[in-house]
Amino acid sequence: VDAQSDQSPCLISADWGTTSLRVYLLAADGSVLDQRSSQQGMMSLNRDDFAGVLSRHCSDWQQRVALPALLSGMVGSRQGWAETAYAGCPAGVSELADSLLPVAAPGFPSVRIVPGISTVDGDDFPDVMRGEECQIFGAVVRLKLTAATMVLPGTHSKRVTVVAGQITAFQTFMTGEIFAALKGHTILGRMMKQPGTCAGAAFSRGVTHAAQSTAPGAWLHRLFSVRTLGLMGQLPGHEAEDYLSGLMIGWELAGLRSLSPVVLIGAPQLTQRYADAAQVLGIPTVVAPDHCVCVGHTEIARRAGLI
Amino acid sequence: VDAQSDQSPCLISADWGTTSLRVYLLAADGSVLDQRSSQQGMMSLNRDDFAGVLSRHCSDWQQRVALPALLSGMVGSRQGWAETAYAGCPAGVSELADSLLPVAAPGFPSVRIVPGISTVDGDDFPDVMRGEECQIFGAVVRLKLTAATMVLPGTHSKRVTVVAGQITAFQTFMTGEIFAALKGHTILGRMMKQPGTCAGAAFSRGVTHAAQSTAPGAWLHRLFSVRTLGLMGQLPGHEAEDYLSGLMIGWELAGLRSLSPVVLIGAPQLTQRYADAAQVLGIPTVVAPDHCVCVGHTEIARRAGLI
Repeated sequence: VDAQSDQSPCLISADWGTTSLRVYLLAADGSVLDQRSSQQGMMSLNRDDFAGVLSRHCSDWQQRVALPALLSGMVGSRQGWAETAYAGCPAGVSELADSLLPVAAPGFPSVRIVPGISTVDGDDFPDVMRGEECQIFGAVVRLKLTAATMVLPGTHSKRVTVVAGQITAFQTFMTGEIFAALKGHTILGRMMKQPGTCAGAAFSRGVTHAAQSTAPGAWLHRLFSVRTLGLMGQLPGHEAEDYLSGLMIGWELAGLRSLSPVVLIGAPQLTQRYADAAQVLGIPTVVAPDHCVCVGHTEIARRAGLI
Repeated sequence: VDAQSDQSPCLISADWGTTSLRVYLLAADGSVLDQRSSQQGMMSLNRDDFAGVLSRHCSDWQQRVALPALLSGMVGSRQGWAETAYAGCPAGVSELADSLLPVAAPGFPSVRIVPGISTVDGDDFPDVMRGEECQIFGAVVRLKLTAATMVLPGTHSKRVTVVAGQITAFQTFMTGEIFAALKGHTILGRMMKQPGTCAGAAFSRGVTHAAQSTAPGAWLHRLFSVRTLGLMGQLPGHEAEDYLSGLMIGWELAGLRSLSPVVLIGAPQLTQRYADAAQVLGIPTVVAPDHCVCVGHTEIARRAGLI
């Protein structure tokens, strides 16, 4: 089968996270033939609900030929459908394909959950990911890379090292979740008005300030500038949110060193924000194409003999 | 008058913050003859309420001789009783005494609000305090210091440089408020169970980890260890809160350099926690006695000719 030309459906792919579910009908090369999504993420479901939810999302896709499904994300966590043991680093497509966890759903010949990956960082701290690994292997294929530094922005942003097609190391940064907590639940949020149209300058200002505030503990002080600059009339309320966003992303990226352009993987609005911050910091970036998770899933499914 | 021996009431002192009011009946040396407190902080009051609230708290103290009152804290902010302009750094007792803002309350011959202090830090960022300045000048008197580095832990912790009896520089650290936001509104809080009795070790572990995680942006990654150490069975739920507390205070203190023991001013439980963290980091500290704000107020009142 020539994967480039065969556009018949062969795999159902699900990116099943904490708060959302995205399912895709895929051709053998990972191209998306159909898709749908819902808010039926892991958090809203009991263990017994997952099989039915998956079947309902895909029933019309299964009417002609029953297709196998590959799932990744928090669906494989302790609070998900079934808990998968983390694969250790280094891990590539083969290691994941060898460790798929079978579950059963009505109408599916086969449903498998991709395990997450765990590592121990340079300071001996554990770290974990669930779901990002499939996006990463998809990006490796789509960008024809074997080695790269990648950043997957989000609630828990990941910084990942890929060598010889395997994930060899990664770190989680709580950038998105802490931004939301600061905005929603501290005095800094009370300085904020609806963002304006020229917020790019405020964002860049935040990135620059973060890069200048990397002394030990300086972040605990510099965050207060969202308030004091506002008090002193030096930061309009409609710029405060973008300024804080710039500070946070600036801190995440300030310590990043990469020999090659950093690969950004994620939703377009967020990767653009990270690309803008990286540009302020003089870090070259390349944005991965959409639907990397689908390409990652077809690679793993093929290696596992599912397609 | 010998201030050491005269224990007759001469001043009413109010430490009037965002969420609480503490009033004291003071002798000339700042010793506390009587005190009371309530939750009638700035946030719960309209501008017209302040005079009545103060009078009601002190009415029995005023029956024999009507005493003047000195107030400090957020009572002097834009949302308070009346807005005082910040005094600029360097500022000492004289500068504050020269800038008191008179207001009026039933039964008081004189009520004055002490202004806050503003500064510009080494990176040209504005910073502000309201209320801490009176505690600082009280500590200067009580500890017989003219120069010191001081730390006033709290929601917005202050690190203050005192030279020749004046505040010459200070920085605000959002340690307390960010700790609360992380505990209450991120996944880290969900790892926490009621703290146990042997939480001191978890706190020290957090302080040590913070001191080892001072590379640019490393804090955004290391905070996630509250979750991953828990996931991997390396941090029991009842130690998670103290571990996070240790991380946060560790980061605040990690960049602190002082030639003399650092003076800690504040509530005993909190200053003890900071003293413990400083000990882990090898930073000598001395804890200021209670009621520094009262001594600061009598100093300022005397300089202003109120007593």
